[in-house]
Amino acid sequence: MADETIRRKEEHIRISVNQNVQARRVTTGFEDIYFVHKALPGINKRNINLSTEVFGHSFSAPLIVGAITGGTPEASRINSTIAEVVEELGLGMGVGSQRVAIERKELEKSFSVARKKAPTAFLIANIGGVQLVNGYGLKEVKKAMKMIEADAIAIHLNPLQEAIQPEGQTNFEGVLEKIREITAELEKPVIVKETGAGIAAEEGKKLEEAGVKGIDISGTGGTSWAAVEYYRARKHGKPFQRELGEAFWDWGIPTAMSIVEVSQTVNIPVIASGGIRSGVDIAKALALKAGLTSLSKPVLSAAIKGSNETEKVLSLLIEELRNVMFLLGVDSVQTITETPIVITGKTAEWLSIRGFEVESYARRRRH
Amino acid sequence: MADETIRRKEEHIRISVNQNVQARRVTTGFEDIYFVHKALPGINKRNINLSTEVFGHSFSAPLIVGAITGGTPEASRINSTIAEVVEELGLGMGVGSQRVAIERKELEKSFSVARKKAPTAFLIANIGGVQLVNGYGLKEVKKAMKMIEADAIAIHLNPLQEAIQPEGQTNFEGVLEKIREITAELEKPVIVKETGAGIAAEEGKKLEEAGVKGIDISGTGGTSWAAVEYYRARKHGKPFQRELGEAFWDWGIPTAMSIVEVSQTVNIPVIASGGIRSGVDIAKALALKAGLTSLSKPVLSAAIKGSNETEKVLSLLIEELRNVMFLLGVDSVQTITETPIVITGKTAEWLSIRGFEVESYARRRRH
Amino acid sequence: MADETIRRKEEHIRISVNQNVQARRVTTGFEDIYFVHKALPGINKRNINLSTEVFGHSFSAPLIVGAITGGTPEASRINSTIAEVVEELGLGMGVGSQRVAIERKELEKSFSVARKKAPTAFLIANIGGVQLVNGYGLKEVKKAMKMIEADAIAIHLNPLQEAIQPEGQTNFEGVLEKIREITAELEKPVIVKETGAGIAAEEGKKLEEAGVKGIDISGTGGTSWAAVEYYRARKHGKPFQRELGEAFWDWGIPTAMSIVEVSQTVNIPVIASGGIRSGVDIAKALALKAGLTSLSKPVLSAAIKGSNETEKVLSLLIEELRNVMFLLGVDSVQTITETPIVITGKTAEWLSIRGFEVESYARRRRH
Amino acid sequence: MADETIRRKEEHIRISVNQNVQARRVTTGFEDIYFVHKALPGINKRNINLSTEVFGHSFSAPLIVGAITGGTPEASRINSTIAEVVEELGLGMGVGSQRVAIERKELEKSFSVARKKAPTAFLIANIGGVQLVNGYGLKEVKKAMKMIEADAIAIHLNPLQEAIQPEGQTNFEGVLEKIREITAELEKPVIVKETGAGIAAEEGKKLEEAGVKGIDISGTGGTSWAAVEYYRARKHGKPFQRELGEAFWDWGIPTAMSIVEVSQTVNIPVIASGGIRSGVDIAKALALKAGLTSLSKPVLSAAIKGSNETEKVLSLLIEELRNVMFLLGVDSVQTITETPIVITGKTAEWLSIRGFEVESYARRRRH
Repeated sequence: MADETIRRKEEHIRISVNQNVQARRVTTGFEDIYFVHKALPGINKRNINLSTEVFGHSFSAPLIVGAITGGTPEASRINSTIAEVVEELGLGMGVGSQRVAIERKELEKSFSVARKKAPTAFLIANIGGVQLVNGYGLKEVKKAMKMIEADAIAIHLNPLQEAIQPEGQTNFEGVLEKIREITAELEKPVIVKETGAGIAAEEGKKLEEAGVKGIDISGTGGTSWAAVEYYRARKHGKPFQRELGEAFWDWGIPTAMSIVEVSQTVNIPVIASGGIRSGVDIAKALALKAGLTSLSKPVLSAAIKGSNETEKVLSLLIEELRNVMFLLGVDSVQTITETPIVITGKTAEWLSIRGFEVESYARRRRH
Repeated sequence: MADETIRRKEEHIRISVNQNVQARRVTTGFEDIYFVHKALPGINKRNINLSTEVFGHSFSAPLIVGAITGGTPEASRINSTIAEVVEELGLGMGVGSQRVAIERKELEKSFSVARKKAPTAFLIANIGGVQLVNGYGLKEVKKAMKMIEADAIAIHLNPLQEAIQPEGQTNFEGVLEKIREITAELEKPVIVKETGAGIAAEEGKKLEEAGVKGIDISGTGGTSWAAVEYYRARKHGKPFQRELGEAFWDWGIPTAMSIVEVSQTVNIPVIASGGIRSGVDIAKALALKAGLTSLSKPVLSAAIKGSNETEKVLSLLIEELRNVMFLLGVDSVQTITETPIVITGKTAEWLSIRGFEVESYARRRRH
Repeated sequence: MADETIRRKEEHIRISVNQNVQARRVTTGFEDIYFVHKALPGINKRNINLSTEVFGHSFSAPLIVGAITGGTPEASRINSTIAEVVEELGLGMGVGSQRVAIERKELEKSFSVARKKAPTAFLIANIGGVQLVNGYGLKEVKKAMKMIEADAIAIHLNPLQEAIQPEGQTNFEGVLEKIREITAELEKPVIVKETGAGIAAEEGKKLEEAGVKGIDISGTGGTSWAAVEYYRARKHGKPFQRELGEAFWDWGIPTAMSIVEVSQTVNIPVIASGGIRSGVDIAKALALKAGLTSLSKPVLSAAIKGSNETEKVLSLLIEELRNVMFLLGVDSVQTITETPIVITGKTAEWLSIRGFEVESYARRRRH
Repeated sequence: MADETIRRKEEHIRISVNQNVQARRVTTGFEDIYFVHKALPGINKRNINLSTEVFGHSFSAPLIVGAITGGTPEASRINSTIAEVVEELGLGMGVGSQRVAIERKELEKSFSVARKKAPTAFLIANIGGVQLVNGYGLKEVKKAMKMIEADAIAIHLNPLQEAIQPEGQTNFEGVLEKIREITAELEKPVIVKETGAGIAAEEGKKLEEAGVKGIDISGTGGTSWAAVEYYRARKHGKPFQRELGEAFWDWGIPTAMSIVEVSQTVNIPVIASGGIRSGVDIAKALALKAGLTSLSKPVLSAAIKGSNETEKVLSLLIEELRNVMFLLGVDSVQTITETPIVITGKTAEWLSIRGFEVESYARRRRH
């Protein structure tokens, strides 16, 4: 089984990088959100402090690289490159699902290289929520964390992907209870993350009550796993699966909506991910009260080229964020949430009809 | 007359399959409706039960094949193929208008083949409402039902088509009273269906009061009968009729709007049809409180190719529906109506201004 | 001066027919308005009565041909053709501005031909409101009316056209008072009409108070006079005027908005014109409470080809209107205003913010 | 340093004129605003008075040419040409940033030529707000004003441009206090202007309280300085800066929104600029309660060609404005604010959610 898993992981990387697997008829919602430019920033751009403390860890900027890969030789190089750069920049990093290495010890190195290259960066281990139903428990979680000396564990929820891929595991009965068991026993923070379909207010509430310490909403509008499975099915001549992939290509809660759904509902940090492509997007996510932001695709494409390219991509994002903060007269990440933003269009429509408040964002500090 | 009717039926099939007769400037409204993805489905996809009981009959999935055709040799093959597949899958099926066979006994076989191939499936006989004004009554209704040993009779209302086609019958005076006479006498359920222009709340109310047991709203956004008549007129060199077809191409109440108009007004099952093209559409219709959904065009195109193709099309729709239910954590068709949906855009605008409630759909089970 | 006027009129016809002089970035607003289809019309299409009485005259359908032309040989043929057809169909007709013939008696025939060919049809004489400021009075009005034995006089307001064309007269001081003087003396009804830029509620009120008996709102969304002047200026090498024409190409109040602005404000008949291109548009105008509708461009293009073509165009419009009425179960023109219409989009937005009621249209007869 | 500044200024002009540096995914908002045409203007177009008094100066029309350039030989010719035309037309003019000439006396002529050619026109001197933090004070302000015998000084705020350009100065700490010091000492009016990113209500309030006498909101939707820097970076092979320019290309508050934000907040004159391209735009800005309007780009392109071309561009704008006023029956610039305008779309959405009133504009003088 693991060989097949490895082949699948290789395909995932190839398809993500070479095919158009972005959302097609749905967007993140960030394009509906406008900042209110401040002609008098009143600050010195040089004094802007991008650092933030989340999960008791100090990040030099509110940015982590999302869980991408592991298990294959190429994955090993990618993890190594990303780790090297996040260590240098003081960011954080999640690794891809570690199941493959929990089951085959010889694959551990493709993950543990992350800690080797990033001795102090915030590293997030990763296992699938659905594995918890299929026999995994505290033991495997600890094994995954130990593998990279993780600062936290991310339990990923990927029902869409499991439902579309032929080899998918689609028994999610009791996943929440299993998560609760883990959070009760584990000292380090448990983060729950989606994988591109977003998290609704209702689920956010349940997760917080289950003892989860952070929620990565991973909304719709960026890379679509259904699209990835569409291309895999096309390649393997499986028209039925291909049609399924097509039908669910744009499924999910767009990122901006999901950030608000969860952040207006829970009191734990929200990590914003899903289609974040610029420092302006990062700033919008933070203004919507995300505590951290996370990207995968742009970093994956860069990491394949090397650490120089990776460093450029991440530095540009950080500089863009710094610029936004300068243009809003905001000198700390914590106070971005005090600057007004105007939520319009489909995003405002979704949030209002779902019962969330949108006016207060636009009037913050107006009076 | 019947020969001409047969020619017309042949043309209808040819044009529906080979020309673009879809709505052009109007859509079903389904694209305005979003599900709220559930990252924690909490169920086992394998345990999802798609079966439903409507009209006292148990369907293995809330899906029937809409009234398509009859009367010609090709129609006979199509009915046979569809019947074979719906029997196998445990679905239901409506036949095309049976008037032609009521008037010419030798054409009965093109309809009765449906029951031969589908001994247990839910079969719906079919006569035109306008025929009831032109002399038809309980006798003809019973004859139509007996022809296919029908489980129900659909009386179709097609004023648009009658108004556009040169040979159209456009006296609809007293149709409602005639329907009431039929429902009063008939034991089996009477369904009233539109043919692509939708049913408004006002008409739904009248139909329920007239004793109708189900309403197939057949809304706008899928196949346009005005478009079919446009192509017929073009072929026959009738510019006046062609212009009429063009002018009414997009006439009618879009499907999503019509489902809500009727389902918020009556207490009998609503059958959703008109432009349903995927299992996601089916799920949206059910979430809007339709009891069954119905498709014609995609099944017609498949049925011409054979039962294998037909089975694939219907199975894919069912799998897509099952996937949606999995991603919403819904394990029975009956509880889809408890999951939140976000109605936006033109559809929300139409419904609000017409006086229907749209917020409650978005907040179901939120608190 | 008159020669120049004649040349201008010839150019106007040529440009209107051969160039694209339709509104570009603005529409009539009719596309924002939806009828609520009635699957049970409950009537016999054959019994639909299209006749209506307005200004004490009985029209066989609520449709007149808008003021088009006069003064030139070609205008004479056009007026003759249109008159012949409206007489046959029992409609009405307005002639173009008669100033040219008031000043040059030999040109009278190009107008009086209308009455010769249409002995019983409702004919509307036509003079410019701005002429009333420049010396015209009751005498000229009566002369214009006598010329065609008119049933009514239309005083046209064309400030946009006058402002754009190099030879334009742009003193509109006291036009309203002059209109009041005419209405006080004249027995036959005075209609005031715009020429493609629409009439606002405020102006409608003033006109009603001035004794006007009908208002032709002539809204934006159809033929643009600024566009016509754009092409004239281009032809004559006048870049300054060409730029002016371009800048005002889409100026004015869209037709649907203007109908509501005026009909919710006055108690005299509203004539709807400006971009009406189908019987569906006609029905929408009537549902918005216009008493008559009027078209120019499509009839002009047809009239150049002859009476057959003209009769076809008008008959098709009437049949389309009849079809709409059938599909709404409405058997008289007067009761179209009782059938619900759904006003959405830009049109609803304009009307609401201007303080007009839009919900009641959608709920008429719902309860 | 000054040499480099001069090279930069030359590049700015070349890029502004030859590249597409207009906003791409954002518009001024003027397209969301509609006038309510007045079919009965009730005035004589000839009697329309375009003159207005602002800052104690009488302008023959509410139009000035925005701060463009200075310091280079070409800038000198441009300033000379514009000055000649604004003098002739009785308008006003701002010069580009004078820092370069404050520091190098031999460059003064490129600015002072403006006063030479425009002995009576309203001339506005120009220094950067950020220079006030870097050592400039009353002395330099007075020097700049004396250089052109200015009627007012504009302090420009350009944090976006400074943040994007490699040589940018991004310390804006204390700019507001420095402005307050200048206004306290200077007799002539101090205007504060943005440079294409707009001014928010909050900033407008602070500026008024700091003694500023006019605010040029310079909103987003016209020339983008980020775009200019994008092209400079591309030319100089600086991919990082190029990406930054791209990311902030459309940053800022659109012009229409900014006019309302500020005009509903302060009691000093608002100058509207940013993407104004026609007399219709000018009229919309005035209807939103701007006291003056200002353009740069179209005048720059014309001025390079000469005074004839420049005079044509400005005369056309004035004639377009006069036409709008005529079509609204408004005979003075001051009363444009009494005529109704309909604010729709994104602009209405932004303003409403930010807490500004939009209905009253549409109902002015309705009752």
